[in-house]
Amino acid sequence: MSDARVINFGAGPSALPASVLEEAARGLLNFNGTGIGIAEISHRSKEFTAFLAEVEGLIRSQLDVPKTHSILFTQGGGSAQFSAVVLNLLARHHLLHPDLPNAERVLDYVITGSWSKKAAEEARRLGGGRVNVAVDARPYSNDAKSFDNIPDHGSFSFTPNPALIYYCENETVDGVEFSNDASSPASFPFHLLPQGTPLLPLVGDYSSSFMSRPIPRLADHAIIYAGAQKNIGPAGLTILIVRKDCLVDVDGAAKLGAAPVPLTMAYKTLADNSSVYNTPAVLPIYISGLVLKRSAELGGVQYYEALNKRKADKLYAAIKEGEAKGVFRAKVKEGSGSLMNVVFDVVGDGLEAKFISGAEALGMKAIKGHRSVGGIRVSLYNAVTEEQTDSMVAYMKSFLSQ
Amino acid sequence: MSDARVINFGAGPSALPASVLEEAARGLLNFNGTGIGIAEISHRSKEFTAFLAEVEGLIRSQLDVPKTHSILFTQGGGSAQFSAVVLNLLARHHLLHPDLPNAERVLDYVITGSWSKKAAEEARRLGGGRVNVAVDARPYSNDAKSFDNIPDHGSFSFTPNPALIYYCENETVDGVEFSNDASSPASFPFHLLPQGTPLLPLVGDYSSSFMSRPIPRLADHAIIYAGAQKNIGPAGLTILIVRKDCLVDVDGAAKLGAAPVPLTMAYKTLADNSSVYNTPAVLPIYISGLVLKRSAELGGVQYYEALNKRKADKLYAAIKEGEAKGVFRAKVKEGSGSLMNVVFDVVGDGLEAKFISGAEALGMKAIKGHRSVGGIRVSLYNAVTEEQTDSMVAYMKSFLSQ
Repeated sequence: MSDARVINFGAGPSALPASVLEEAARGLLNFNGTGIGIAEISHRSKEFTAFLAEVEGLIRSQLDVPKTHSILFTQGGGSAQFSAVVLNLLARHHLLHPDLPNAERVLDYVITGSWSKKAAEEARRLGGGRVNVAVDARPYSNDAKSFDNIPDHGSFSFTPNPALIYYCENETVDGVEFSNDASSPASFPFHLLPQGTPLLPLVGDYSSSFMSRPIPRLADHAIIYAGAQKNIGPAGLTILIVRKDCLVDVDGAAKLGAAPVPLTMAYKTLADNSSVYNTPAVLPIYISGLVLKRSAELGGVQYYEALNKRKADKLYAAIKEGEAKGVFRAKVKEGSGSLMNVVFDVVGDGLEAKFISGAEALGMKAIKGHRSVGGIRVSLYNAVTEEQTDSMVAYMKSFLSQ
Repeated sequence: MSDARVINFGAGPSALPASVLEEAARGLLNFNGTGIGIAEISHRSKEFTAFLAEVEGLIRSQLDVPKTHSILFTQGGGSAQFSAVVLNLLARHHLLHPDLPNAERVLDYVITGSWSKKAAEEARRLGGGRVNVAVDARPYSNDAKSFDNIPDHGSFSFTPNPALIYYCENETVDGVEFSNDASSPASFPFHLLPQGTPLLPLVGDYSSSFMSRPIPRLADHAIIYAGAQKNIGPAGLTILIVRKDCLVDVDGAAKLGAAPVPLTMAYKTLADNSSVYNTPAVLPIYISGLVLKRSAELGGVQYYEALNKRKADKLYAAIKEGEAKGVFRAKVKEGSGSLMNVVFDVVGDGLEAKFISGAEALGMKAIKGHRSVGGIRVSLYNAVTEEQTDSMVAYMKSFLSQ
């Protein structure tokens, strides 16, 4: 297989459409006929400025982002946002409620997997407020210690006036995702959030599901963020959707006692400078833009929602078939399974390694589970085709009949 | 010129070698025979892990980085480092001197241009220490308000036990650069730094000259940082060289009163995780690696030092010729001129615009000075060839004879 492209089921960085990569390869030498490659052109050139505006438009139209929200481009990945959301929203809380003691600045965290757990730990590290765990999914798991479920709505407990309410829509490591169906018990409990405050400080980490389907109640979010390296582009680009009341004067807040915010983490700095306060990740933005154009042509997030649902359904059905035969074991409770990262175990001595090497021999790569949880993880991001998914399903069935 | 590559004299993002871009274009579809493109492969794959180690080695060997220093890769550009160096070195100062009041934690800034000025402003914003301006070059300029010189060593005044000593080696906007010749009055005054403290908290911003020539007294630096987008790669990658005593326990320092450091800005987090605590900018690292391999083959920073000197000398000579004719005017005092960004004015009504459009007609692009200072800026980064420089010089001479 040394010259051919393989099937990449990796959890991120992850597969990109071959047609986009071919166009990007041309852009590396000559971007839009400028005679300058995209990795070499000024981020302030009129050509790149126009391209950046186009990328913003592609996100705005496909996700139906209202004018109340800015779309920003930054660097540092989701982990940098773990800090940035806390710093910016605590600054906002200081401006709104200057006289509260910090112990009454509450940050509500919904913990449904490894990433939201890390985000809560970062909030604790940074201080300046009190972390309230609105729910932790582990006590509700099959073994009382794993992230394998979205807990029932009755288990959530939000505080009345938080500085921040945090959730991670799709947990890449654990394969747990909120449902997009408001009537599902695994949906996010928007109805339990504090009422009467229209501008909720709701933060959604959409790193591994961004652009894979519509975002429910997008307009009610203060901040949505996503690294590009799952569904839309190379690592190195982080996309933010920020409600404009969250573009706060962090220096004014610091005078009131909030922690100072590093310049490149202040959302207002980014917004005031149209995401080019300093040099952005031009090449990752370019490739993401090509992916988003293709997505729009195919039918946008509605197209991908249907496609991704079909792909995941097929894989979960194959796992179920394997469970009946005692060969596979689902790692996530039914209804809480991610459409993006499908995780399961292969039961029996040495069978997991055999499953992985058998897949690799067929050109299906990067299906080993995250090192912290083991097992198998098949990631089905937008660029993974239904045909590629069918190949995996066929392989799973052949494995069962061995 | 729509299909041909032009000559890119841009100040960054800037020219890259065409041979590298052609190789990168192939890597986009298939990285090192893996069948997976470089923008799609896991940052934890054995292939990328090996590549990252190779990139580190290429920097270490060419710049002669001693074992006392770690080489780290991060995101966010120089502007993010404006904050990170302050937060990490103030944390270090708290650990070394836990009982000092913050007013006695002094940060010495050498201000020779727009970027070091911005860096000092960020230190003031973040607080936690007192900014001392060790020198400001403006009072020593021709018009007493511009950055056009490296001041005499007698103008510098450092404090005895600073938390940080900051300088920017090459000022991209203003075209001012420290000389590499220790006997030059425009060299950095290492001999004036506090003596008797071998582990000086010396920080050098090398964003726009990194890998263009050797770094004087590299081993004496606490931190050297550089964005990739000038001499070695696409925007989105920041390279750090950090002396190991500066990989400090920021949480321990916070307990002593230092400001908390966002996780992705803590150098120790980066170092403890070999720069892959979270997903790094894989594609920019890849292209930078290809550039660094080529650099090593050509003879490393010694090769580029000689080449860049020849290129700049030719350009400064042409400016001088134009000065004699009253057509050009150097913007920087002799001896302080940058080898990377050569800035000058074209004298006379409408002549600057004529100079720029004439160059563009010949395929020489991006020579407009920074919007804050105007004039002409010709950037001569590593990837700009001597032949391309000769073309500019020939054009300048033809302009003089019009």
